Amino acid sequence: MSHYVIGIDFGTLSGRGVLCDVSDGSPVCSAVYDYPHGVLCETLADTSVRLPANYSLQVPSDYIDVLKHVVPELLSVSGVRAGDIIGIGVDFTSCTVLPVYSDGTPLCEDSRFANRPHSYVKLWKHHSAQQFACKTNYIFNSYDPSILRSYGGKVSSEWIIPKVWEIYAEDKEIYDAADYFIEGGDWIVWRMCGRQVRNSCAAGYKALWNAERGYLPRNILSLLDPGLSDLFDIKMNAPVLSPGTCAGGLTEEFAGWIGLIPGTPVSVAVVDGHAMVAGSGISRPGSMLQIMGTSSNQMIVSDRLIDIPGICGIVKDGMIPGYYGYEAGQAGFGDHYAWFMDNLLPYKYKVEAKNEGSSDFEYLSSLASKLSPGGSGLIALDWWNGNRSILSDSDLSGLILGMTLGTRPEEIFRAIVEATAFGTKTIVDNYEKHGITADRIVAAGGVAEKSPFIMQIFSDILDRKITVPSAPYAAARGAAIFASLAAGKKNGGWDNAEEAISNMTDQAGKTYYPDKENAAIYKKLYALYVRLHDEFGRQGGTGYDVMKEIKKIKNG
Amino acid sequence: MSHYVIGIDFGTLSGRGVLCDVSDGSPVCSAVYDYPHGVLCETLADTSVRLPANYSLQVPSDYIDVLKHVVPELLSVSGVRAGDIIGIGVDFTSCTVLPVYSDGTPLCEDSRFANRPHSYVKLWKHHSAQQFACKTNYIFNSYDPSILRSYGGKVSSEWIIPKVWEIYAEDKEIYDAADYFIEGGDWIVWRMCGRQVRNSCAAGYKALWNAERGYLPRNILSLLDPGLSDLFDIKMNAPVLSPGTCAGGLTEEFAGWIGLIPGTPVSVAVVDGHAMVAGSGISRPGSMLQIMGTSSNQMIVSDRLIDIPGICGIVKDGMIPGYYGYEAGQAGFGDHYAWFMDNLLPYKYKVEAKNEGSSDFEYLSSLASKLSPGGSGLIALDWWNGNRSILSDSDLSGLILGMTLGTRPEEIFRAIVEATAFGTKTIVDNYEKHGITADRIVAAGGVAEKSPFIMQIFSDILDRKITVPSAPYAAARGAAIFASLAAGKKNGGWDNAEEAISNMTDQAGKTYYPDKENAAIYKKLYALYVRLHDEFGRQGGTGYDVMKEIKKIKNG
Repeated sequence: MSHYVIGIDFGTLSGRGVLCDVSDGSPVCSAVYDYPHGVLCETLADTSVRLPANYSLQVPSDYIDVLKHVVPELLSVSGVRAGDIIGIGVDFTSCTVLPVYSDGTPLCEDSRFANRPHSYVKLWKHHSAQQFACKTNYIFNSYDPSILRSYGGKVSSEWIIPKVWEIYAEDKEIYDAADYFIEGGDWIVWRMCGRQVRNSCAAGYKALWNAERGYLPRNILSLLDPGLSDLFDIKMNAPVLSPGTCAGGLTEEFAGWIGLIPGTPVSVAVVDGHAMVAGSGISRPGSMLQIMGTSSNQMIVSDRLIDIPGICGIVKDGMIPGYYGYEAGQAGFGDHYAWFMDNLLPYKYKVEAKNEGSSDFEYLSSLASKLSPGGSGLIALDWWNGNRSILSDSDLSGLILGMTLGTRPEEIFRAIVEATAFGTKTIVDNYEKHGITADRIVAAGGVAEKSPFIMQIFSDILDRKITVPSAPYAAARGAAIFASLAAGKKNGGWDNAEEAISNMTDQAGKTYYPDKENAAIYKKLYALYVRLHDEFGRQGGTGYDVMKEIKKIKNG
Repeated sequence: MSHYVIGIDFGTLSGRGVLCDVSDGSPVCSAVYDYPHGVLCETLADTSVRLPANYSLQVPSDYIDVLKHVVPELLSVSGVRAGDIIGIGVDFTSCTVLPVYSDGTPLCEDSRFANRPHSYVKLWKHHSAQQFACKTNYIFNSYDPSILRSYGGKVSSEWIIPKVWEIYAEDKEIYDAADYFIEGGDWIVWRMCGRQVRNSCAAGYKALWNAERGYLPRNILSLLDPGLSDLFDIKMNAPVLSPGTCAGGLTEEFAGWIGLIPGTPVSVAVVDGHAMVAGSGISRPGSMLQIMGTSSNQMIVSDRLIDIPGICGIVKDGMIPGYYGYEAGQAGFGDHYAWFMDNLLPYKYKVEAKNEGSSDFEYLSSLASKLSPGGSGLIALDWWNGNRSILSDSDLSGLILGMTLGTRPEEIFRAIVEATAFGTKTIVDNYEKHGITADRIVAAGGVAEKSPFIMQIFSDILDRKITVPSAPYAAARGAAIFASLAAGKKNGGWDNAEEAISNMTDQAGKTYYPDKENAAIYKKLYALYVRLHDEFGRQGGTGYDVMKEIKKIKNG
C-alpha cells in the first residue's frame, strides 16, 4: 500500500499544494488557488477604508479557502483516497502576522474591528514599520550589541517587533484586544489541528527566538516601550516546535472541510524560503541552497553554532531538524537585472530583439554571453538595494567602474551580473572563513530556472559545480517532507529528516560546471571586487565616506 | 575709406573664411569650401593603397583649393574690392604635419612617393603613432622629468615627435628625402608669401619649443633615436614667430590665384583652438576661454611664467602676443554625452521624444533639467576617455556611484554632465591655486552653443558667470584679427593685440548666472568629487589600484 503526503505552499498571491508519494517524494499532482482578496495595498477588504503608503495586508479566511479548494482538487485529480494521506504540512510567507483572540479568531473578523487596518494580517512585504525597525536597532545596539549579533546587527522592518510595535503605537486598542500575535503559518496549523504551537523557523529568523534562551526577556522588550514588554511571554506564549514535529491531528470540522480523515497528522509550519532547503534535497551540512529571485538567500545547515558576522540569522531546527540553519542574503539580486532592462536597454536592442523574436532579456543575455571575463574592463558593486550580507548596511548603493567611450550596454549588463555573483561569493567566503563549508551548491528560484547565461557566470565566479533541481515547487515539496516526518514511520512516513529528504528528493537537474580559464580570470576580478567592497562598504575608506555623504545629500 | 581683413579657418573637413571690417570686427560675410579629398582613412587618394588602422591623412593641394575658392567668393559676395583687403591670416588644425622639399613642394606630390602613405599630410587625429608617444614619454621622463613639465609630463600621439618618429621608423626613405617637416598652417603661409616661418603657437604646444631655449637640443632628441637628432635643427629650421606677425606679402602668383593684390600682408599662422581666444574677445589676463566640444580646453593668458602641473602646455605668444598662453583640457567632454545617447538611451524615451517632435538629446535634457542638484544621490568621474588635465593619465576610466533600484536614466545622464563640469572645475581650481585666476569665463564650441541645460549646470558648478558669445566663427575671426595685426596701423590695421581684439570683438552673447542655492549644494558635491578624483586618480588609493588593475586585465 502506498502512502501519500500533502504540502501546501502559502505564497504572496496564492496557495499551491502538491501531493507526493512518501516512498520517493515524486509529486503525483499539484493544484493552485488564488487568494480571493489578494494583497490589500490601497483599500481595506470589503470596505472603503483607504490604506496608508507601503501597506500590504491580507485576509486570513483566504488561507482557509486555499485548503478548502486545493486539497479536494489534489485528491480528485490524483485519485488518491483520503485514507492514504498520512500527513499534511504547510510552508508560509514570513513574517506574516495577525492579531487573534484566545480561541484563534482573527480580530479582523470581529465586526468591531473590520474597519481597522491594524486588525488584519500584515504580509511579509508590509513596509510601513521602518521607523520602528530603526528605533529597535538603535535601542538594542546601544544597550547590548549581542542581542542582534546573530542577525547581522539589524532587525528588518518586515520582522515581528516592528510590525507589532506599529500596531501598538498607532492603534493601541487592537494591541490590547489581541490575546496573541501569530504567524500566518502557525495560525493555519492551529485552525487545522486545534492546537496553538509556534514554528522555530519563523520564531528564530523573524522574532529573535533561540533554542538556548527562548524569546527575549521582558526587560529587554521594555527598553523599546514598557507597554510592549508582554509581547513575547503573553501575546506569543505557545510551545516553539521544530518543523516536521506533529502539531496535532486534523480536527473533525477541518477534516470535513477539506476531505481528509480526522486525526491526520499536521506538521508544525515552516517559512517558505526555508522549506526549500529540504525540498531541494539538502539534508545535512556540506550543501548550500542559493535562492535566486529579486533578492537572494544563501541557506546552509551545520551541527555547530558559530557566531558568524554579517548573516541574517542562525536558528536551531530552523531549516532541517537537528541542525542549526544559517541564512544570509543579498538585499538586491534579480532586481538589478530588471533595473537595467527597465531603465537602460537601448532602443536598438529592443528593436533587434523583436525582429529576432527573442525577449529583451534573452537578446541582451545572448550579446553578453559572447563577451569574455574581464574583457570589458568594468567592475561593479551590487548594492542597488543596499547590502544585507555580509555588510548589513541598507544605505550602501551601487557602483560601476571602468567605462570608456567604447563601453557597450551588454558589457554594463554583464558587469552587473558578475557583481551579483561576486556578492554571493563574499557570503560563501564568509561562511567558509568561519568554518561553515559547502562542497555543493544547489540553486533555486526564478533566475536559476530561467537563465543559463547567468548560472554559468555564477559557476565560473564561485568556481563550483551548481545544480538547479529539475523538480518544481521546492517549497511545497519541503512542506510535504515535513508532513511525512510529522506522520512518522509508524504511520508510513519517516522518523528521520535525513532519511526523509534523501528518499523524497532526487538530484536530477541541470548542472553547471566552472570553466577553469574563466574561473582563473574571475579570481583576479574578485580580488578587485573585494578591495572595492571593503573600500566602499567598511568604515575607514574614502569610498565609504563618499557613498554615505552623497546619500545624506540626497536625503536632504 | 573702410579696411577689411580675411581670416581662414582650416578645419578637419573644410576651410571657412570670414571677411571682417577692421574697425569693429563685424563679419561682412563668410564662405566655406570642403576639402576635395576630405580625410583619408581607408585608401590613399587617387590610388588603391590601403591604409593601416587609425590613419588620418590629407592632401595638401586641398588647402590651396580652399583659398582659390573661398577668397574670390568672399570678395564677390561682399562687394569689397581687393585693394581694401589689408591682410589675410589663417588658423589651422594642429599638429597636422607634412614632409616637404626645400622649395616647399610636398613629397606626396612627387610621383616617386605618391603611393607612400608617409609622404602625405598626417592630420591632427592620425592616431597610429601611439607607441612612439609612449616611448618618447618613457625615455624623456626617465632622463629628465623637466623636459615635459610644461606639458603635464606627456606628449600626445597627436604631436610632432611621435608622428615624425613613425615616419622615420616605418619609411626611412621619406624621412631622409624630406628637407622639412612642417605644420599645415605654416606650409600654407609659406605658399602664400614665399617665406618659410613657423608659428610659435604650434611650435610651442605641439613641438616642445619654448621662447627661452627654442626647440629641444640634438642630444635630447638622440635619446629617442640618433637618426632623429636632426629633426628640429635641420628639418624644422625656420624662424619661429608669433601669430599676428607679418610673415610676408602675397606673392604675385598666389595673389593672382585668389584675386587679391600682390604684397597683401600675410599673418603668421595660429592653431585653430588657440585662435578662438582672440576671436572670443580675450585680450589679456583674467578671462578664461572654455572650448566645449567632444573634448574640452581651458585657455588662459598671463604675463607670468608659472610652472603649473597637469596642464597641456604653456607657450609664450601662443595665444595672444605678449603673453604666456596656458592650455589645459579634458580628454573627453561632449563625447560622454554622445556615449550615453548612443548606448543607454532607453526605448521609451526615444519613442516619447519622437512623439513630442524633440530630438533625443533635447528630450533627455528636458527630463534632466527638472532634477535638483544632489537629488539623485549619484556622482560620477568623467574619465571615459582618460584624464588629460590635471592628472595626465589616459589609462583612467569612468565611474558612476550611488545607483539604487529607483535610479532613472535622466539621473545618470545628469550625473555625467555634472562630472564633466566638476572636471572643468578641477582645472580652474588648479590654475587658481598656482596664481592664474579667471574672473570671467567665455565658453565656445558646440556644447556651449547648443545646450542651455548643460551651460546652466556649468555656471552653477563653477559658481561663475559664463558668457557664450553670439558671434560665430570664433577661430576664423581670430585669424582675421591676426591679419589686422600683420597689416599694422600704417596699412589701416592695428599695432597692438589688445587694441585689435577689443575693437574687433564684442561682448554680446548669452550669459549664464549661477543659481546660488544650486551652487551651494554643488559645492558639497564637488568636495566629494575631489575625494573620488584623488582616490581613483592618484597613486596611493585603493581606487587607483583597482582602476589600473582592471584595465590591465582588460588589456590581457
